[in-house]
Amino acid sequence: GFFTCLGQDGKVYDDLKYVWLQGRQVWMYSRLYRTVPKFRRQEVIAAARAGGEFLMRHACAAPPSQKCAFVLTRDGRPVKIQRTIFSECFYVLGLDELGRATGEPRYREAALKMMEAIVHWVREDPSELGRPQLTGATPHDSMAVPMMLLNLVDQLSEGDAEAMSRFAELGSWSAQRILLHVQRNGTAVLENVSEDGEELPGCMGRQQNPGHAIEAGWFLLRHAQRQRDAGLVSQAVETFMKRPFRSGWDPEHGGLFAFQDVDGLCPTQLEWRMKLWWPHTEAMVAFLMGFAETRDPELLEMFDQVAKYSFAKFRDPEAGEWFGYLTQDGRVALSVKGGPFKGCFHVPRSLQMCKEILELLIKEAESLNQE
Amino acid sequence: GFFTCLGQDGKVYDDLKYVWLQGRQVWMYSRLYRTVPKFRRQEVIAAARAGGEFLMRHACAAPPSQKCAFVLTRDGRPVKIQRTIFSECFYVLGLDELGRATGEPRYREAALKMMEAIVHWVREDPSELGRPQLTGATPHDSMAVPMMLLNLVDQLSEGDAEAMSRFAELGSWSAQRILLHVQRNGTAVLENVSEDGEELPGCMGRQQNPGHAIEAGWFLLRHAQRQRDAGLVSQAVETFMKRPFRSGWDPEHGGLFAFQDVDGLCPTQLEWRMKLWWPHTEAMVAFLMGFAETRDPELLEMFDQVAKYSFAKFRDPEAGEWFGYLTQDGRVALSVKGGPFKGCFHVPRSLQMCKEILELLIKEAESLNQE
Repeated sequence: GFFTCLGQDGKVYDDLKYVWLQGRQVWMYSRLYRTVPKFRRQEVIAAARAGGEFLMRHACAAPPSQKCAFVLTRDGRPVKIQRTIFSECFYVLGLDELGRATGEPRYREAALKMMEAIVHWVREDPSELGRPQLTGATPHDSMAVPMMLLNLVDQLSEGDAEAMSRFAELGSWSAQRILLHVQRNGTAVLENVSEDGEELPGCMGRQQNPGHAIEAGWFLLRHAQRQRDAGLVSQAVETFMKRPFRSGWDPEHGGLFAFQDVDGLCPTQLEWRMKLWWPHTEAMVAFLMGFAETRDPELLEMFDQVAKYSFAKFRDPEAGEWFGYLTQDGRVALSVKGGPFKGCFHVPRSLQMCKEILELLIKEAESLNQE
Repeated sequence: GFFTCLGQDGKVYDDLKYVWLQGRQVWMYSRLYRTVPKFRRQEVIAAARAGGEFLMRHACAAPPSQKCAFVLTRDGRPVKIQRTIFSECFYVLGLDELGRATGEPRYREAALKMMEAIVHWVREDPSELGRPQLTGATPHDSMAVPMMLLNLVDQLSEGDAEAMSRFAELGSWSAQRILLHVQRNGTAVLENVSEDGEELPGCMGRQQNPGHAIEAGWFLLRHAQRQRDAGLVSQAVETFMKRPFRSGWDPEHGGLFAFQDVDGLCPTQLEWRMKLWWPHTEAMVAFLMGFAETRDPELLEMFDQVAKYSFAKFRDPEAGEWFGYLTQDGRVALSVKGGPFKGCFHVPRSLQMCKEILELLIKEAESLNQE
């Protein structure tokens, strides 16, 4: 397993192992090994494999249940269990990619088995997640759930006709669930809506997370590309990318707010004004992917704006890596490079995806110039 | 029940009812009614009674279990349950004081019945709290638990010889548990220690919360006064008040940090540098109470320093009340006056307690002058 609690200089300040981050790091290493020639190195796949083995041995907190721990001790004993599906989702992400990178079927088999449990919890019976049924808790759809599922469908289906047909319906269902979060005549993406797509009362109903909406934008855009759905392409770009960027960008100091209230009230999250790294890495991917698809120059300007801010503020030129958490006015709030929620994932995924898209665009421009 | 989600101008922005804050507001109104002549008004006790009735009708999420919800809908249906004892503790606090203020025994009976359940969960069997037993979760003592119990012993015992003797052992036990959090040769108060008082590894073990230590200081000081324990008086003042103040005060911008790491590493709480209202209200109480007991002029200077900062930064001269959450450099981070964790409690309790202590000190000074 990987240490992810790393100080500014990379020193380990806590040896707990967060399952989200284990799965994401296994994915990242495996993906780089499989698809990028310069990372096709023994130590890369050996690290990915070690992380995958750790997950298969320790992630499930009480086998035979597939329910995973949220955090484990250094030697793999469960410390805490979340009553959600995300630890399990990153387990799937990591092990599926490790299976592709190594060619060993047992990793993808473990991923598919976990995926079955997740789909069961989401669409049939959540009782194994351990959330008590409370009469005051409004059943609602949190956008993170269909986003995560759509991302997994994308992962599991790549170049696999059988998986593609097996998960086609789940992909469309997830995309439809994400679209339920478009509210107020198409002008706002809300994080939580009722199960039939109505706006909910109170803070929970008004909550917005601009970086999350933009990330959903590129998940939807990839789905739309696979489905050849031009209407969805345009909705992904206009509703999930451009609008949340315009309303979520801090006009005073730059950067995307962590949370907002659709009515302009004050959110109750203490960090709402802070600038977190991952909305910015996801916005870079989204705008570049959107530009490559639509050639809308506004998207390229948005990419440029986010990239300039991010490289100026998040990057640590001294010790490497990006900081994760800035104050509203762009100063480093937490000096750590990794922690319970920041691992080896958003930064390298974004940089690698942006590099690939930019290389394609440059190649295309060059071949146009030669004509 | 009371609305506590109030915007800058007092407007309700969410109608959820947080049980911690319901109990605290019942306590505050009842205490003011009972002990302060100018608040001995019908509308004050009527509001307290309405809050108490709401709690007795709705707080328990699944009767006959005494386990309370953390948050209720406007009409009292449970939304969320925490796997801790704090909702129940504030239920006890509020209803005991309501019983004293109204003279109606049923409120104190409800409080005592709940107290029994709490003590059972803490000292005998926590299983009803619903926390899963996980092999990686180190059993530990979180300082909030004995602090809360000591505060309740103080509340329940006031002027009641039978309760005093019934809870005497619990009071001493709680004080002893708090003292286990003094680590590193008496130089640091740590939020979490092992059950036998050893320092724990990792972030959890190194976590400090200066405002919490200082609040524990005045809880301990009251206990020491009741026990006529001069050694404990001095430990409460030196170890829990002065030291955490010196290490927890921001030398650059003033104000107490929300969290610190005893080794000076970066805490993982995103708000660690922020200035929250309640550490400051509790520090005002602690330093003034400490000064009244010891006549150490340094404590009066500390009181003055915190009070000046607080009135300059937290008070809202326009719409009244205090803001709850400032950035490190003292600007308002959240414009709300109340929310899921800020209700009608720390500010009025601190102001009233400080006023009472200051009046005693002034009276004493005047009578000295007359001699």
